[in-house]
Amino acid sequence: MAYIGVVGPSVASADDVADAVALGRGLGERGHVVVCGGLGGVMAAVSRGAAQAGGVVVGLLPGASRSDANPHVTVAIPTGLGELRNGLLVRSSDVVVSVGGSWGTLSEVALAVRTGVPVVALRGWRISDDDLTGPTAVSSAAEALAAVDDLLAEASR
Amino acid sequence: MAYIGVVGPSVASADDVADAVALGRGLGERGHVVVCGGLGGVMAAVSRGAAQAGGVVVGLLPGASRSDANPHVTVAIPTGLGELRNGLLVRSSDVVVSVGGSWGTLSEVALAVRTGVPVVALRGWRISDDDLTGPTAVSSAAEALAAVDDLLAEASR
Amino acid sequence: MAYIGVVGPSVASADDVADAVALGRGLGERGHVVVCGGLGGVMAAVSRGAAQAGGVVVGLLPGASRSDANPHVTVAIPTGLGELRNGLLVRSSDVVVSVGGSWGTLSEVALAVRTGVPVVALRGWRISDDDLTGPTAVSSAAEALAAVDDLLAEASR
Amino acid sequence: MAYIGVVGPSVASADDVADAVALGRGLGERGHVVVCGGLGGVMAAVSRGAAQAGGVVVGLLPGASRSDANPHVTVAIPTGLGELRNGLLVRSSDVVVSVGGSWGTLSEVALAVRTGVPVVALRGWRISDDDLTGPTAVSSAAEALAAVDDLLAEASR
Repeated sequence: MAYIGVVGPSVASADDVADAVALGRGLGERGHVVVCGGLGGVMAAVSRGAAQAGGVVVGLLPGASRSDANPHVTVAIPTGLGELRNGLLVRSSDVVVSVGGSWGTLSEVALAVRTGVPVVALRGWRISDDDLTGPTAVSSAAEALAAVDDLLAEASR
Repeated sequence: MAYIGVVGPSVASADDVADAVALGRGLGERGHVVVCGGLGGVMAAVSRGAAQAGGVVVGLLPGASRSDANPHVTVAIPTGLGELRNGLLVRSSDVVVSVGGSWGTLSEVALAVRTGVPVVALRGWRISDDDLTGPTAVSSAAEALAAVDDLLAEASR
Repeated sequence: MAYIGVVGPSVASADDVADAVALGRGLGERGHVVVCGGLGGVMAAVSRGAAQAGGVVVGLLPGASRSDANPHVTVAIPTGLGELRNGLLVRSSDVVVSVGGSWGTLSEVALAVRTGVPVVALRGWRISDDDLTGPTAVSSAAEALAAVDDLLAEASR
Repeated sequence: MAYIGVVGPSVASADDVADAVALGRGLGERGHVVVCGGLGGVMAAVSRGAAQAGGVVVGLLPGASRSDANPHVTVAIPTGLGELRNGLLVRSSDVVVSVGGSWGTLSEVALAVRTGVPVVALRGWRISDDDLTGPTAVSSAAEALAAVDDLLAEASR
């Protein structure tokens, strides 16, 4: 069992939503705890998928009110930290998966890379920096789940 | 279902431990989520009680390593915030129960009172301030559970 | 030169205001940086005194808007952390002085005591706990300044 | 007068250091407060430049010890927040200037863009995202200062 952070925009495309639901279901089936921002879009979709598979979903909410959480969150933490809660999400995660792309997501991904948390990126922006080992790029939920499995297996070695 | 924060010293007396276990069991039986600091002493005792009753226990750890959590925690969040994580605990709780007393506990209780989160104090320090409505003082786990029930009933009215 | 945190209620009595101004002036004259919550009441009074003496005043604001700061603050930091900014204030201070009393102040004082930051308490609530070394109680701004001098001298030995 | 956040790697190239010193000097001459992470590399260089021009430099340190600050910082705040202090830096800044590039810098820049703080990027990584208005790219300290002037003028209109 591991803690998998899932990040993505609160306003998501149909593709991002479908992938996030499938990703959440796979994570829930594997017994992982899904950690997300607890709101809508990709966050609600991955929460829904994980909850359908009987998984635990932690929502680290930016605001101070628990009622902001989407209905699929199992444990809702109203941090009141605004965007700083993204840092908590990264700290709480063994692996971070980004779905789609946004500047908010980019911030979380960059923080994860910097602090040594492995990242799997399902679509999204493209960063070019020759000196850095960045996210593992994948193009489907199934590939994202396989990449998570691999990264966890590596970490436990 | 509600989120009940439980605070107390990491080095606890036998009485505090016994009360915290009984408190956790009662909270778990009621289906509440227990939010605590995730470490030892009162935190481990209330986690144990809640877990025995099948409850969910969230540990908001001060450090950056999940392995600091006591074994009864269901969801361990390594906040890396040090003592500032006490503020997160208060924000995440519908009611705070303090068991025993310490300066750290006092800080959390004072913050809860200030931010309008009701507090039940099972033993501990005595504060005199005529102008303030402070914690509800109780002297057993059963009384603490009854006080939590009452406060939640009031809040839902 | 040291960093002196000053805490106290935003709605303050005339006595508290007069003491906070005198305290701020003394701290500014000594070349200390005053760290406070940046708002009104005791915070504005100590900022005013320090600014009059040419001192630097850091305001760690709870909100996200710099315009919340009182006009005497030299450096205003809108933390957006709400009451959690109290923890930053304690971390940033070599000594904490409380003026008057409130639950918010109590939270900061308790956190300081717990984390090993010496506290000088100018009036305020009374805490009884036989097992603990608490704040140094004083009853005037002059006594508070003398206590700060002593604590800094001790720390540098 | 404004608060200008400057971000950049703690291990910096000679070009980055030279630019950061020149940038700091220009910001200090304009009477701006420089907010940075308080450590070495770009942070120390911009601090040095600003201090030489008589400016105020705020160092928001990741650790809990003030002695981590570079010697040019005027006000050192040991936040103890680790990388989360980057979020405080962004919140405290009217404009953010990045010098050079690193994943940590990227995280701060992305957070600034997301939360509506204008960003000037002096060299660094290249991000492609057609849907987003990103940083203003410049290639010298003089250009960065001109861009800051423009952004502040726009904001005050």
